[in-house]
Amino acid sequence: MADDKKLTKRSEDFSAWYNEVVLKAELADYSPVRGCMVIRPRGYGIWERMQHQLDTMFKETGHENAYFPLFIPESFMKKEAEHVEGFAPETAVVTHGGGKKLEEPLIVRPTSETIIYAMYAKWVQSYRDLPILINQWANVVRWEMRTRLFLRTLEFLWQEGHTAHATHEEAGEEARRMLGVYRDFMEGYMAMPVVTGVKTDAERFAGALQTYSCEAMMQDNKALQSGTSHDLGQNFAKAFDLRFQTEAGGIEFAWNTSWGVSTRLIGGLVMTHGDDNGLRVPPLLAPIEIVIVPIWRSEEDKGRVKAAAHLIKESLLSWERRIPGRLRVHVDDRDGIKPGAKYFEWELRGIPLRLEIGPRDLDQNQAILVRRDTGVKRAVSLSSVGEDAADLLHLIQETMLIDARERREHNSIRGGITYARFREVMEGDGGFVYAGWCGDAKCEAAIKEETKATIRVLPDEEFRSAEPPKTCLKCGSASIAEALWAKAY
Amino acid sequence: MADDKKLTKRSEDFSAWYNEVVLKAELADYSPVRGCMVIRPRGYGIWERMQHQLDTMFKETGHENAYFPLFIPESFMKKEAEHVEGFAPETAVVTHGGGKKLEEPLIVRPTSETIIYAMYAKWVQSYRDLPILINQWANVVRWEMRTRLFLRTLEFLWQEGHTAHATHEEAGEEARRMLGVYRDFMEGYMAMPVVTGVKTDAERFAGALQTYSCEAMMQDNKALQSGTSHDLGQNFAKAFDLRFQTEAGGIEFAWNTSWGVSTRLIGGLVMTHGDDNGLRVPPLLAPIEIVIVPIWRSEEDKGRVKAAAHLIKESLLSWERRIPGRLRVHVDDRDGIKPGAKYFEWELRGIPLRLEIGPRDLDQNQAILVRRDTGVKRAVSLSSVGEDAADLLHLIQETMLIDARERREHNSIRGGITYARFREVMEGDGGFVYAGWCGDAKCEAAIKEETKATIRVLPDEEFRSAEPPKTCLKCGSASIAEALWAKAY
Repeated sequence: MADDKKLTKRSEDFSAWYNEVVLKAELADYSPVRGCMVIRPRGYGIWERMQHQLDTMFKETGHENAYFPLFIPESFMKKEAEHVEGFAPETAVVTHGGGKKLEEPLIVRPTSETIIYAMYAKWVQSYRDLPILINQWANVVRWEMRTRLFLRTLEFLWQEGHTAHATHEEAGEEARRMLGVYRDFMEGYMAMPVVTGVKTDAERFAGALQTYSCEAMMQDNKALQSGTSHDLGQNFAKAFDLRFQTEAGGIEFAWNTSWGVSTRLIGGLVMTHGDDNGLRVPPLLAPIEIVIVPIWRSEEDKGRVKAAAHLIKESLLSWERRIPGRLRVHVDDRDGIKPGAKYFEWELRGIPLRLEIGPRDLDQNQAILVRRDTGVKRAVSLSSVGEDAADLLHLIQETMLIDARERREHNSIRGGITYARFREVMEGDGGFVYAGWCGDAKCEAAIKEETKATIRVLPDEEFRSAEPPKTCLKCGSASIAEALWAKAY
Repeated sequence: MADDKKLTKRSEDFSAWYNEVVLKAELADYSPVRGCMVIRPRGYGIWERMQHQLDTMFKETGHENAYFPLFIPESFMKKEAEHVEGFAPETAVVTHGGGKKLEEPLIVRPTSETIIYAMYAKWVQSYRDLPILINQWANVVRWEMRTRLFLRTLEFLWQEGHTAHATHEEAGEEARRMLGVYRDFMEGYMAMPVVTGVKTDAERFAGALQTYSCEAMMQDNKALQSGTSHDLGQNFAKAFDLRFQTEAGGIEFAWNTSWGVSTRLIGGLVMTHGDDNGLRVPPLLAPIEIVIVPIWRSEEDKGRVKAAAHLIKESLLSWERRIPGRLRVHVDDRDGIKPGAKYFEWELRGIPLRLEIGPRDLDQNQAILVRRDTGVKRAVSLSSVGEDAADLLHLIQETMLIDARERREHNSIRGGITYARFREVMEGDGGFVYAGWCGDAKCEAAIKEETKATIRVLPDEEFRSAEPPKTCLKCGSASIAEALWAKAY
């Protein structure tokens, strides 16, 4: 950060801006292994908060955690035809172990359906053993050729839920329930609004009956698929002989779901909320919510403002706020660095609230609170600083969601767009376009070919236009469903 | 569990008993991948509680979490001579990715010193960038030929701390501090007493100056190395050019430590506390602390005891105990399973406290609390059940540690043992033997060859005998240090 302090502006080069923010805010770094990144403590701290909240939500919906092997025998991957076709081209293969060539190569898991349903087949005999509701926090590897920090890396961290049910209805409800959990998390904690819906066949998970997805709009108007939930039907149950005795005494294959989100969410957070000064982290996910910067000119002042800064920290920590957990506060009292340089650094890192305290503030029993999201400053009395700070954090969290939603709506186009205009939009600023689709994969493929835009989802009812589109965006035939089109990460 | 309900007795075949407990208590299962296990929810729940507590202790001592790549370039492993010699024979090697042969094979990490210190070298310029105090929760792979559930598996879960310091003194203190954290955790939470000390050269970590270890005694009198902390000196700093500008303006290599514990701890928990009825889990690590079993004969009673069981659960949950967190309670009100069968199942799983409630108890406003550790029953009033249960859990936790410590001391031999007698002991019941050592690796090797016993540690002062041994157990020359000898896992 020493020489080249200024970030590239988002409007100049969004992609360069993104990489600079991730690196300079020390969220992650490139590693010596092609396509693999290091998640540094400031990035991992955000991931830990994400994990904690998601894990709580998974447990509240009845799931337990477990851990399955990293390695999958090659033969397992081949048992479900669509699945192997989808994943085989991007696998990492272990061919040697303990100095010897293996009889059967092992695949480093790109996802764990195969190994997990093979185990479920061992555990399930009767309907009494169902449902199985298990989640796994793990690393997975997909051999991507073009990688981007957080968004697409060879190895990434994620959670994968895998469930088995006695009926298709129950599995369908589960897949939908977890999509809802993801949405609640993304909106409630990440302040990142999403459009939910179902994927077309072209974009389905390899081996699923239906894939549901959360799609968020980044600041470059591209879509980020931020979480998916799959109704797997009986495809994997049949491939791995996952059968059970029904209550009536018959034998049936179980019904499965799987669902996952990954460290990609951190990339989504950056591209949803960052600005030209750096990152902006929603308070609920910020490892540090408030940074206190004491300001002094003379040595005499230095002692008393530093002492005051630490006293304020104690007072903030002892303040019992409404949401669980104490305020997360850091005092930056480093010597030899000017306050302006500290502000710059903490803004870059996206800490939601800065508290400045100088000798004159101290004399007036006040401090200055500065919001990272808006830059607005406010003087507050030291006697009510805990309450004021907590209120502001709450407000920042809400404001960030509202702002992001407004930005998305501002960059969404609905109703009667011509294909010519659509092409202009996709060549220009892009955005979310809601338009009709005839249901033919050929129209979908042609649009992708010509504009790089894809159907992100057939949106759920609440996201659909009041007036349903009548014709297909591409061919003009009757529309069978409204589709959300966008270029995507 | 249907047919073969009885466990093998520990006295008959400790090893068979161990496997049966792990499988039947559903802590883990064998997977279709040789040497890799599945950690099932009941086992993973214990690991989550271990992780949570250790993570808290790491953060309290100033560490942050981060994540480094799973894959390590083969050339990195070779940069530290001892390190590669120690780990190369047991690596899993990825030779193909994305359908192509790789130019340089990638090692699946057996431990992450090399990749982590390569990154630190990038991040550290000056003494101001030190210390770096980072921990990683991760999976690692070591290609073991003979595997045992939890104790030795190809893949296991662990944490690895990696720190960099400006002075050797500071690094030495860190290595010692983390050994202390491990000991506090193992004794305070696992109720598993350990002997701490330093390893001999033969047992040192490949690449370390000093390895410190926690050694616990299992119920078959063998030692389990349950956690290690390494003073790495400047070995890795030199291999990876991890240098910094000193305050005085010179350039020096940094000083490193690393330290780790793994899912092996779960095996240690089983072998420390299990009995012939199954597992016994210390309350602080038990995902369920209290299981409530309502008892009924008539349909009429069934309704009211089931209702009472759930009311008691609510009352237990609302009880604010002294240690943080609510009581963890489960009601087993399954129909069609007799109370005795339920008792059997929950004893096997090691739940610390069982609460029985029948119609007659209900009439008398009481319930029966049964301790898993001692089997002792006690009637308690329903008006004070929260306090009584919490007190008992506290007592169980303490009793388990005291019992384990007594067992260890009972099976430890100190002072003036002849080598002939030592061989008898090691051929018989085994145990911890404290005896003199001349410092010669040849004596150590000869004893290992003849008895399979090794020097577990040169124990720290508090574990040494009041009367220091004068001569070497093997050769009779002057002893330079008291050594703890035992057969080990």
